[in-house]
Amino acid sequence: MGFRATPRVRSLHSFPGITVAQIDEEVAKLLQLKAQIGGDDGKHQFVLKTAKGTRDYNPKQMAIREKVFSTIIGCFKRHGAETIDTPVFELKETLTGKYGEDSKLIYDLKDQGGELLSLRYDLTVPFARYLAMNKITNIKRYHIAKVYRRDNPAMTRGRYREFYQCDFDIAGQYDAMIPDAECLKIVHEILSGLDLGDFRIKVNDRRILDGMFAVCGVPDDKFRTICSTVDKLDKMPWEDVRKEMVNEKGLSEEAADQIGEYVSLQGGMDLAERLLQDQKMSQSKQACAGLSDIKLLFSYLQLFQATDKAAAEKVRTTEVQVMVASAQKNLLEERLQLVSELWNAGIKAEVMYKKNPKLLSQLQHCEESGIPLVAILGEQELKDGVVKLRVVASREEKPSGDQQRRIPLPGWTEE
Amino acid sequence: MGFRATPRVRSLHSFPGITVAQIDEEVAKLLQLKAQIGGDDGKHQFVLKTAKGTRDYNPKQMAIREKVFSTIIGCFKRHGAETIDTPVFELKETLTGKYGEDSKLIYDLKDQGGELLSLRYDLTVPFARYLAMNKITNIKRYHIAKVYRRDNPAMTRGRYREFYQCDFDIAGQYDAMIPDAECLKIVHEILSGLDLGDFRIKVNDRRILDGMFAVCGVPDDKFRTICSTVDKLDKMPWEDVRKEMVNEKGLSEEAADQIGEYVSLQGGMDLAERLLQDQKMSQSKQACAGLSDIKLLFSYLQLFQATDKAAAEKVRTTEVQVMVASAQKNLLEERLQLVSELWNAGIKAEVMYKKNPKLLSQLQHCEESGIPLVAILGEQELKDGVVKLRVVASREEKPSGDQQRRIPLPGWTEE
Repeated sequence: MGFRATPRVRSLHSFPGITVAQIDEEVAKLLQLKAQIGGDDGKHQFVLKTAKGTRDYNPKQMAIREKVFSTIIGCFKRHGAETIDTPVFELKETLTGKYGEDSKLIYDLKDQGGELLSLRYDLTVPFARYLAMNKITNIKRYHIAKVYRRDNPAMTRGRYREFYQCDFDIAGQYDAMIPDAECLKIVHEILSGLDLGDFRIKVNDRRILDGMFAVCGVPDDKFRTICSTVDKLDKMPWEDVRKEMVNEKGLSEEAADQIGEYVSLQGGMDLAERLLQDQKMSQSKQACAGLSDIKLLFSYLQLFQATDKAAAEKVRTTEVQVMVASAQKNLLEERLQLVSELWNAGIKAEVMYKKNPKLLSQLQHCEESGIPLVAILGEQELKDGVVKLRVVASREEKPSGDQQRRIPLPGWTEE
Repeated sequence: MGFRATPRVRSLHSFPGITVAQIDEEVAKLLQLKAQIGGDDGKHQFVLKTAKGTRDYNPKQMAIREKVFSTIIGCFKRHGAETIDTPVFELKETLTGKYGEDSKLIYDLKDQGGELLSLRYDLTVPFARYLAMNKITNIKRYHIAKVYRRDNPAMTRGRYREFYQCDFDIAGQYDAMIPDAECLKIVHEILSGLDLGDFRIKVNDRRILDGMFAVCGVPDDKFRTICSTVDKLDKMPWEDVRKEMVNEKGLSEEAADQIGEYVSLQGGMDLAERLLQDQKMSQSKQACAGLSDIKLLFSYLQLFQATDKAAAEKVRTTEVQVMVASAQKNLLEERLQLVSELWNAGIKAEVMYKKNPKLLSQLQHCEESGIPLVAILGEQELKDGVVKLRVVASREEKPSGDQQRRIPLPGWTEE
């Protein structure tokens, strides 16, 4: 303890140490916030909300996020990926011209003097900037971070203006399809690991689509526009897609029908092989090259067969293993001493911040927050040098370990 | 595989699935970036940099960050803390009036229609907003996230415009000094765990400082201004501080000298006890209350004695345990099969993306990235149903396990 008004409890985040003046300011701003919140005078009705399209995450949601991220990151690490981080905003010109139509959805920062900045719109452009800046040609990296889009998303469908992207990229020149196969293996491992139910990963090669358009008689200058119509097959039936191609895009009925035959096909290695034999498709060099690579990809995927599984559990927002409680009064000091011994032994433990809490309320707290064990101190136990260890769920009670001495703490949770 | 142009490789982050048109856009924007970067025509010299006051984090820096965070978060969890997350920007009015002078350092977003937004300046105000919005009165939460300040920081001294804050707060009404003691215990555990060398945590109670000013004869209306002069003791010697108090702030020489005696004192429980007996200090009820609480705090801290330690190691940016390699040609399929088995068994493994890599380059890769083990496939080993496992560092070679069959994979790394 000292009397100098400078660094007191050194804030973990504050570089220069916090001063009394800063603490006063901190208090002042909280009081002002409180006044605004409780502003009954109605003069300035303070709006308590997050910005449009954004949300807070409460402890339960964070616990789920942590679990999901740990599955995903565990997989990336198993595959030897590194991670990088980039700033949340970039120079506006770094983003300019990269997103076409969607550029209007970029959040710009106000011009407050200095550089013109924008919030990142994805993680791809910052990654490309990072590679170019550092002259890196080979890297296997993942980056999980929030991106920002001034869209009007349907929040009811889980879409937001601030949302996470999870990027995994293998940059570099490698032999064909090997990194591609590993990417798919990773997607497979993650989706299996997250136990989201059944899933299907669709793969394609742009050369197959282009080759198919060519052999079906789509004129070169219509590739792009026919492609975006075909994209709509997820949302509308083939009949409507066909109508759009013919009536709006001016494609011949014959070409449309030929496309229709191909887009209805589904399959794996077998389909690739069949199409390589297909009289029409085999006329396109481009399509054949794409199909050969797809075959190669499938051969690698067969070698990579994945059979993961996972299980879901009830969500806890903390990981506390033991609650240190007492049944009698005036045992605060003993409780504090014991919880400290537990912390020092690396055991996740908690104690109620009350001099004389009731045993019932201590047990209820355990039940509510899913703490599995409670260590109960009492006069008699202290005399005997033991603690009572109770399994909260079963309400079973037993003196823990040797009656004659206090048992070594790290052994506690191992029964 | 299918021919429909819609969802192909489903992007992990993209809610509605990615379309071919989107992929084309993605490619287009990368090509444009490439063109800008390589813009030899000199017309538009593209600036490859991060925004002022911000930086990227490379894999090595990220590995260190991850280690530091895991120590910190591990401690928070041991103490039963939950975590929350809030958006990177808030309504401008939520931040208005909370930061006094420093409000000019807030990053505002451009008015693009809709709400006026600002980047968060700290995690305290968003936390208060979160509590108020959700009517939460009791929570022990931590929040580690980036905050934004349009300052002109000395980046050479590690200060940035985008930087992390690490907040830990216990909100609620509790018996005096118990949560305060736990906070200090946590700081102690973390600083010990991070092994940053020796450290000192300074504690104070505002009532002691105010009481001391009162008994030294500082007029009530001069408390704040004298306080900010005392704050400067970290940066300048007592003589200069005294001069400022007397000459600039108009304090009497006598009062200044009395303050000088108190601010030079340093100590713990002993000092608190001595000051409670101090003739002058004991006249201030306020100071006595503060000193009693400090005594209580120290008594809890004594119960919480912490004796943690930690050790630093060499930094690796990936966690790969085994490299699957081959000494001969044409073993790509066998390598892929083996690395897949390892992944499935939860072992962190890597393989080179080359049909016929040289053994030497495979070993060099292990040495460079700190992969401890290499599993070498060869014709003879395949016939015998074994793999050679080599410890990269020692260059020692040995057939792994039973010679007659391929050993069960999860056992590999356990020798």
